[in-house]
Amino acid sequence: MNSLNALQTPAAVVDVQRMQSNIDRMQNQVNRLGARLRPHVKTSKSWPVAQAQIVAGAQGVTVSTLKEAEQFFEAGVIDILYAIAMAPTKLDRAFALCQRGCCLKLVTDSVAGARAIAEYGRAKGHTFEVWIEIDTDGHRSGVAPESDLLLEIARELNRVGARLGGVMTHAGSSYDFDTCEALLQIARQERDLAVRAAHRLRQAGYACAQVSIGSTPTALSYDHLHGVTEVRAGVYVFFDLVMHNVGVCSTGDIALSVLASVIGHQPEKGWLIVDAGWMAMSRDRGTQKQKQDFGYGQVCDLQGNVLPSVLMTGANQEHGIISVSIDEGEAIEQRYPIGTRLRILPNHACATAAQYPAYTAIMADGSVEQWERFYGW
Amino acid sequence: MNSLNALQTPAAVVDVQRMQSNIDRMQNQVNRLGARLRPHVKTSKSWPVAQAQIVAGAQGVTVSTLKEAEQFFEAGVIDILYAIAMAPTKLDRAFALCQRGCCLKLVTDSVAGARAIAEYGRAKGHTFEVWIEIDTDGHRSGVAPESDLLLEIARELNRVGARLGGVMTHAGSSYDFDTCEALLQIARQERDLAVRAAHRLRQAGYACAQVSIGSTPTALSYDHLHGVTEVRAGVYVFFDLVMHNVGVCSTGDIALSVLASVIGHQPEKGWLIVDAGWMAMSRDRGTQKQKQDFGYGQVCDLQGNVLPSVLMTGANQEHGIISVSIDEGEAIEQRYPIGTRLRILPNHACATAAQYPAYTAIMADGSVEQWERFYGW
Repeated sequence: MNSLNALQTPAAVVDVQRMQSNIDRMQNQVNRLGARLRPHVKTSKSWPVAQAQIVAGAQGVTVSTLKEAEQFFEAGVIDILYAIAMAPTKLDRAFALCQRGCCLKLVTDSVAGARAIAEYGRAKGHTFEVWIEIDTDGHRSGVAPESDLLLEIARELNRVGARLGGVMTHAGSSYDFDTCEALLQIARQERDLAVRAAHRLRQAGYACAQVSIGSTPTALSYDHLHGVTEVRAGVYVFFDLVMHNVGVCSTGDIALSVLASVIGHQPEKGWLIVDAGWMAMSRDRGTQKQKQDFGYGQVCDLQGNVLPSVLMTGANQEHGIISVSIDEGEAIEQRYPIGTRLRILPNHACATAAQYPAYTAIMADGSVEQWERFYGW
Repeated sequence: MNSLNALQTPAAVVDVQRMQSNIDRMQNQVNRLGARLRPHVKTSKSWPVAQAQIVAGAQGVTVSTLKEAEQFFEAGVIDILYAIAMAPTKLDRAFALCQRGCCLKLVTDSVAGARAIAEYGRAKGHTFEVWIEIDTDGHRSGVAPESDLLLEIARELNRVGARLGGVMTHAGSSYDFDTCEALLQIARQERDLAVRAAHRLRQAGYACAQVSIGSTPTALSYDHLHGVTEVRAGVYVFFDLVMHNVGVCSTGDIALSVLASVIGHQPEKGWLIVDAGWMAMSRDRGTQKQKQDFGYGQVCDLQGNVLPSVLMTGANQEHGIISVSIDEGEAIEQRYPIGTRLRILPNHACATAAQYPAYTAIMADGSVEQWERFYGW
């Protein structure tokens, strides 16, 4: 890891071997169950990462912003699902992408949303493909699979300007569980309710070609995928401490870490001060309510080995406070002198990665590449 | 606010009248007490904001990264304090700025840090100006004002390659208080201990020209500034809900808000779904432990009027959950239809602003400007 000694800190470091292993694991899981994988690229917002997913077998991508759709379309991805209910004022940008040849799928969970899309499409002489968002766990948005509303939205889409392409759901509450049994249960619930919604639509006479489901914890927990056409998952590409606590990865799988330098000591408190604060880690405290609270992150040495019970326990904008336990008589300044480099595993890879204009990718041969990422909307 | 209807959402909106009023208030406060104001530009990272502070009377700026130093030097600011203890590997960049004519002040709180700076300076034939960070409230870094270490660091700086320029401190624990009495007490403590450290250095024969103190809550609470040369403060330029809870501003002073669009409803739960999640607000939950928990933010109408008890209570990456109370019989979809635009006041302006490549500035005449901001290190 000599290449990490020359970097400016803080830096977002990607261990490419770990990333590739995570990509292969998810792709193999979904292949084995007979569905397609449409990774959610909101985690990385970086072409080399998405490219590795596509090379491994991913078909299309999922995005959380039209900026992502525009950037990945520019990079060469045609099949893009914008997985957030469409705001009417964003239709101009979506239409522009479609006109350029992007197979962009929109999402809605309301009659008003469906109507706005169809009316816009009709006015432009364009037919938008729209998927209906299904609520399979009550955690956020979507329509109930047994609701009348589901069929009303389908009716609204069944006119000039729009076309019902399928249903999609995301059981985000899967992040709240941490046993195989509970994950299997929420995975089955996500799958079965989405399949049920598609069945109801078809029974009512609407074509519903696609059934798209997923989250990283459920995607790794399905026992079968009958009736499902594709799985979506995002954070698995890097994994993080939240996913470690959910139980779907080990700390040794986490491919993203923040490289930081020791800039001070408070020996009486057992504190190292590093130049990575919440700007470098994000304010995400996702492990706070989980079975193991990692503070702002788990600290590792420069080689990426976990330093047991060494955590970032506090963060200001550009200062991180790392709490260490030191053997009696040992001086904290000697063990971790000014300039010592550490790597910190994040609670939530999506949030931490979002703070950086680029990743420093450590390739399998130890060489280093800069991988640009974008931000904004 | 017709100009806000055409914007893509989410957007970071700056109310320039409020911002100017905040700038004038702080400048007048520090002027009245006879010190200089050196604003911390980490909050905005945007030249039009810093320019307004300088036009109002600020002298020099404080930065939290060398990227900020480079960007603001490019914009024309000469006198820059980099207020984070220096990491040895950053000396190349600091030296490059000095060679270009920047009056860059570095900070340290260790003998090893001081030695690294002096040795680098000696090797390059350059004399770095270095300020010693004083710990006046135990919240983070700095040396105790009564410590031997203070004088040891000064000795280390008193050689070829470096020069002791002053002392600086930041009583960040002031954010934990919410009464005038407690704020006055922490403000006096911050000031008196910094002045005391400077006194000890001078008694020991070291020149200590500058005594730099501050945080937004303490800067607005000092009763006098005898012995202090300058005050630093950052978040006051926008203010936020954390500062509202501390008691140094009202919600009507908060100059930064996030413009969002309603994209869905969950009527049974009283939820609006908006297209601003934690990516748009940041994960900062700074009001969680304060006297009033605002969730992820206080919701306002498009004109910026607070909607009482309407809060963003949940956030995923690009989804915000807004909890509203609706009168019996009223339909949430009719009151806040799809496409409705809302403005959300942030918990922590520094963290929220950091998520955006630009601000949408609403000028006094209602016109709109885009103000670029930068990120990274």
